[in-house]
Amino acid sequence: MIKHIISLQKKIDHSYSIVIGTNMMNSIADELKKHFPASKYIIITDHTVKKLHGKKILKKCKKHGLKTSIIALKSGETSKNLQSIEKIINKMTKKSCDRSSMIVALGGGVIGDIAGFVASIFMRGIPYIQIPTTLLAMVDSSIGGKTGVNNSLAKNMIGTFHQPKKVYIDTFFLQTLPRKHIQNGVVEVIKHAIIRDAELFDYLEKNAHAIFNAKNAKNNNHLMANTKNHEKNINTILRSKNSEKNDENKIKNEIMNKIIIQSCKIKARVIEKDEKENNIRMLLNYGHTLGHAIEQVTNYRLLHGICVAKGIILINKIAVKKKWMEKIDSEKIQRLLETFEIDTSLPKKIDKNALMKTLHHDKKFHNGKKNWIIVKKIGHAEIVTDIKNEDIKSVLKNEHETKTRLRKS
Amino acid sequence: MIKHIISLQKKIDHSYSIVIGTNMMNSIADELKKHFPASKYIIITDHTVKKLHGKKILKKCKKHGLKTSIIALKSGETSKNLQSIEKIINKMTKKSCDRSSMIVALGGGVIGDIAGFVASIFMRGIPYIQIPTTLLAMVDSSIGGKTGVNNSLAKNMIGTFHQPKKVYIDTFFLQTLPRKHIQNGVVEVIKHAIIRDAELFDYLEKNAHAIFNAKNAKNNNHLMANTKNHEKNINTILRSKNSEKNDENKIKNEIMNKIIIQSCKIKARVIEKDEKENNIRMLLNYGHTLGHAIEQVTNYRLLHGICVAKGIILINKIAVKKKWMEKIDSEKIQRLLETFEIDTSLPKKIDKNALMKTLHHDKKFHNGKKNWIIVKKIGHAEIVTDIKNEDIKSVLKNEHETKTRLRKS
Repeated sequence: MIKHIISLQKKIDHSYSIVIGTNMMNSIADELKKHFPASKYIIITDHTVKKLHGKKILKKCKKHGLKTSIIALKSGETSKNLQSIEKIINKMTKKSCDRSSMIVALGGGVIGDIAGFVASIFMRGIPYIQIPTTLLAMVDSSIGGKTGVNNSLAKNMIGTFHQPKKVYIDTFFLQTLPRKHIQNGVVEVIKHAIIRDAELFDYLEKNAHAIFNAKNAKNNNHLMANTKNHEKNINTILRSKNSEKNDENKIKNEIMNKIIIQSCKIKARVIEKDEKENNIRMLLNYGHTLGHAIEQVTNYRLLHGICVAKGIILINKIAVKKKWMEKIDSEKIQRLLETFEIDTSLPKKIDKNALMKTLHHDKKFHNGKKNWIIVKKIGHAEIVTDIKNEDIKSVLKNEHETKTRLRKS
Repeated sequence: MIKHIISLQKKIDHSYSIVIGTNMMNSIADELKKHFPASKYIIITDHTVKKLHGKKILKKCKKHGLKTSIIALKSGETSKNLQSIEKIINKMTKKSCDRSSMIVALGGGVIGDIAGFVASIFMRGIPYIQIPTTLLAMVDSSIGGKTGVNNSLAKNMIGTFHQPKKVYIDTFFLQTLPRKHIQNGVVEVIKHAIIRDAELFDYLEKNAHAIFNAKNAKNNNHLMANTKNHEKNINTILRSKNSEKNDENKIKNEIMNKIIIQSCKIKARVIEKDEKENNIRMLLNYGHTLGHAIEQVTNYRLLHGICVAKGIILINKIAVKKKWMEKIDSEKIQRLLETFEIDTSLPKKIDKNALMKTLHHDKKFHNGKKNWIIVKKIGHAEIVTDIKNEDIKSVLKNEHETKTRLRKS
């Protein structure tokens, strides 16, 4: 027998920067031209974001002489499958994209995951940048290089680790973000606080009302209810001269900026220590194992963050029952989520058997054992494996399929 | 604007070994158990190889207490698409594979590419090993970590670089390999010789007859004609007592071993210098740009190696016309290919316009320019970009859609 070694040791550098600011899109074409020259740019987005922002960015890029195309998908998690991937790659092939082309992910978490995955497998990998347009994507999914799509059996079964070249967090996008998408993103901020940063948790408790329940937030929501009026709304917001509202807005923006920056820092530090989720990165999955299963069993009718909130509450209940966590912490978490008007109860009529079955296909299984993330106290999460099917079933059984909100204290 | 750097510098080691021997499959279960413990093994293969070898290997693994399943695809290039990938991943999900599972690629180039791609994207990446069963896979595609599938427009448009954990080259498999698959693989050996190793080219010239035209090779071919009798044939071969034939076989095996080892070494050295095909690895694409286009335009009816041979002849004709290459070298190459009875002519009735169009989608475009590999003299290849559409068209025009074989000297 002859043995030949193929030696592939090397140093790699996947470092990148996350920039956080406002109105950065005005100069995005310059930025691309200067820092990321490419034979062609493909903006991947969804129909809603295309209308609101994509077309403008496309126009700017073309005006600056950049060869740019836009590919838009149906909004929402149901687009996150291999069929969308094939569709995008066929379009890119027809447009004669090559290995020197670049992908621009412009959208929420779903778009970021899809666009990143396409970038990782088109011609065996091309670069991409992330321009998250939702709070959830800004504080969580645009950072860390997790890409992928769902199959019919479970979430994110198909994917890669492929780091973006840069992440542009432009808080201007938040001005047109529907209220439910603020809730969707806030859950991931709260998650980061619970697992790694008790101070951020306190800050959120103190400022939740200012972020979410301020008068203008409600007005904003009202304005946003009709998606067809979105473009008009941006102008309305920009023209708003009401000084009281402006003051309120300023405070709100300041708080929002702070929680975005802090969330990004927490996530970045975790990724630096464990890019490929072999240990500490697993902590970011707190609430996600049950959350993903709820998302899937309810056919993606509920937003990701909302399902994660439900997952957080359920895993906390298990942790309290197992005496790993104190009830008072579990209640504090539930209260904070509810300040943001997030419904943390299990959906009525959810198929609990299907939920148990779906859990079985979850990615967090290792050597046949599932890794669960539990919180021992706010700011400190741990990995445990000794949660049995019975533990989950018993907590699910007690969910009386009714809303189980705490009264606000 | 706030800037936060996420720092991802690290050392990685993707080194692995290639072992070349005979009858290694007898101890493969032990080997897996000892060196690659996994929660589950998924053997990915095609129906022909499953019948010939897969079932036996599966049985051995199970006997040794390894949780093993086999997934078989339709043989041939037409299986190399995203639909097959989804089918395999759904099956793996149903079988509760997890991140500690391992994939075993058992088959030719198509199976290796598919299985490697599945390994790179299942749950964001799991390990795999390569057990090539064809000469082509042994000397070329099983080494180097290129994985992928075709889309409807071009070959290997979708894929990754994902190195295997080990490559097991068991020449026992060659005993059941149909003659046309020996031709298919020999082309890649000749390619390696032409681009990097003039000595190997001489060796092939001297020994071609012994490898390919030896009496028993023809007998073997005859035996192999009926695929249903494959399993019987293995036994027939093993029982063969004819001493003359055995001597001939011994010489043939020795030569075969030498060209396999030398080919693997050439490829390994190239990969070590340039894993991701940024420079020197491109040389391995000699004959492949035109070859892939021919493969696709003829709907994958012809084997990959045969199309590469046609691609080699065409690009040589362009090189001779451009005075980069001497005609005598081009003729030597054609003569060697024809010693192996490889038809190097362009297929009759091929749609030349479709061929030109397909070339346009090829991956070797960079910044809108295509990189072509040409040979200045045997043993020395180079990358050039100044080949124009007219150069290709003019050579294609001269192909009179008839066989243009050289007379054997």
